[in-house]
Amino acid sequence: MAAERTFAVGIAGATGVVGTTVRGILEERRFPVGELRLLASARSHGKQLPFQGGARTVAVLGRDSFAGLDLVFFAAGGAASKEFVPAAVAAGATVIDKSSTFRMDPAVPLVVPEVNAAALDGHKGIIATPNCSTIQMVVALKPIYDAVGIERVVVSTYQSVSGSGQRGVSDLERQSAQAVAGDDVTLDFYPYPIAFNLLPHIDSFLPSGYTKEEQKMVDETHKIFADQSIGMSPTCVRVPVYAAHSEAINVQTKRPLTSAQARELLAAAPGIEVVDDPAQLLYPTPLQATGRDPVYVGRIREDPSVRNGLNFWCVSDNLRKGAALNAVQIAEELVRRELL
Amino acid sequence: MAAERTFAVGIAGATGVVGTTVRGILEERRFPVGELRLLASARSHGKQLPFQGGARTVAVLGRDSFAGLDLVFFAAGGAASKEFVPAAVAAGATVIDKSSTFRMDPAVPLVVPEVNAAALDGHKGIIATPNCSTIQMVVALKPIYDAVGIERVVVSTYQSVSGSGQRGVSDLERQSAQAVAGDDVTLDFYPYPIAFNLLPHIDSFLPSGYTKEEQKMVDETHKIFADQSIGMSPTCVRVPVYAAHSEAINVQTKRPLTSAQARELLAAAPGIEVVDDPAQLLYPTPLQATGRDPVYVGRIREDPSVRNGLNFWCVSDNLRKGAALNAVQIAEELVRRELL
Repeated sequence: MAAERTFAVGIAGATGVVGTTVRGILEERRFPVGELRLLASARSHGKQLPFQGGARTVAVLGRDSFAGLDLVFFAAGGAASKEFVPAAVAAGATVIDKSSTFRMDPAVPLVVPEVNAAALDGHKGIIATPNCSTIQMVVALKPIYDAVGIERVVVSTYQSVSGSGQRGVSDLERQSAQAVAGDDVTLDFYPYPIAFNLLPHIDSFLPSGYTKEEQKMVDETHKIFADQSIGMSPTCVRVPVYAAHSEAINVQTKRPLTSAQARELLAAAPGIEVVDDPAQLLYPTPLQATGRDPVYVGRIREDPSVRNGLNFWCVSDNLRKGAALNAVQIAEELVRRELL
Repeated sequence: MAAERTFAVGIAGATGVVGTTVRGILEERRFPVGELRLLASARSHGKQLPFQGGARTVAVLGRDSFAGLDLVFFAAGGAASKEFVPAAVAAGATVIDKSSTFRMDPAVPLVVPEVNAAALDGHKGIIATPNCSTIQMVVALKPIYDAVGIERVVVSTYQSVSGSGQRGVSDLERQSAQAVAGDDVTLDFYPYPIAFNLLPHIDSFLPSGYTKEEQKMVDETHKIFADQSIGMSPTCVRVPVYAAHSEAINVQTKRPLTSAQARELLAAAPGIEVVDDPAQLLYPTPLQATGRDPVYVGRIREDPSVRNGLNFWCVSDNLRKGAALNAVQIAEELVRRELL
């Protein structure tokens, strides 16, 4: 028996919340890692991080960091991707980039493996992984799209602070403790308190009145389904939850679909777990989804207010399927397709 | 000058969160209260509560509590309304009832004064005030409905725990403190933790898969606008916020309306305050709306995914406009119309 091929893997942004989760998921899923090179800013230089029972030392991310790597996961933010991804590709690595930098580039596949794995074929060295709020939605929409077509989607999100990275998490932790103690709440990352509050504001505002986060849900969905005709109307809201994003999704399908048929389709689809038994008070919640892989779907019900209307509630861990897990699944698919 | 007429007023459920707010708002708005009779369960018998610089003693709510009263606010829950409202009406009082008991009774006006005050004319002794999530939505929809008609509404709510009463508030307080301290979270009112979590579940589930809370938003909107043709698709979600409900509202109007026109209409409408300047990070949040009277509207933007589409974000204090304030405004309107 031939020895399994292994890959030299880099993680740029290895000390951040997504980079840390990528490392964990590579281990959990036994991705065939040969070398693992952890890259981060100078601040983390020399830091030791565990992997496969040993420790790996963090090196400083730079243009010369990539020699010999087969694959680099980028989760170091948009500016770092812009600066260093071209160098990684030039050094011969394939990059799976978590930032929004390359997502809308026509030469870059934007991939959710359950939805459009075939878009990986013929990649040119960069593959983008979509925004967290888009990923879980398109996984849930995919079986419906394939079965009966989709006319229009109205989606309201309930997004956790981990989507903002460590500073968002710190704001919620600190402000919650302050509020519980009866102290004044202090601001850092968010412009208003997030503890016991909601902000209908994620990423910056565009002249249209939509936020960039909302526009991403529109543009990325069109690109992933390769279908500009899907009507998309998103409202993105930050909520005082640590992990897992939730979405109230209203779909108008092209052809009729009963809620029972939808439940069956969704339950059979890859990456989805249906939790939908209201009589037993079973429905997805972000606390239950935290740390887990599936996209959870519940509250599936017909919407009689429109022809072929359907409502459901969709919850998934934004650090896992919404970021790190999707990136590792892309890597697995590249291996399967012999594209690495 | 003739002395202003005063009214003998009762509050049934005077020690609850809504009853307490009714008492405060009667005082704030200088409603012409002559006698004030505070009624509650035996547990609160003899309790002293402040009003207009003095103290009033709580009496036990019973069938013989109402002699001599002109007006009784009921905020003691559905069972108490069912048991005691008929006695109050028989004793000659007009009842403004906060519970859902009589809302869909064709003989009972269901009133939001900014929307359908004229429905009060010819009342038969009972007036119902709608569900909190309905009230703020219909206030915001009214100017749009009048100007261009409404085809369909898709609404996702973000509802605070005060809508569940004191036990909901206690769950969030206790669980937040437990979580901050690193202790296990204990359950009481809600079936799952509400601290740092979301529950897509308000009131009980119907066979349709919708909750009663969601069905109320459909039925009450139809009754208040006296228009069954408005398509309504609600998803109601409990969020870890103490006060003020938020709603992401997507409207398809019958005739075109630009976001600028919508902003103008909403800003000119009674009961609404537009907070909508994204460039200055101005949008409504529940913390800012807490303790205030208006229905706040922001994030107003056209929805290009459908003909005549519009999105906005609507926030209001569910204990005030969503309950106590709306009830007192109904009383004021009854006085104005000489219907008391």
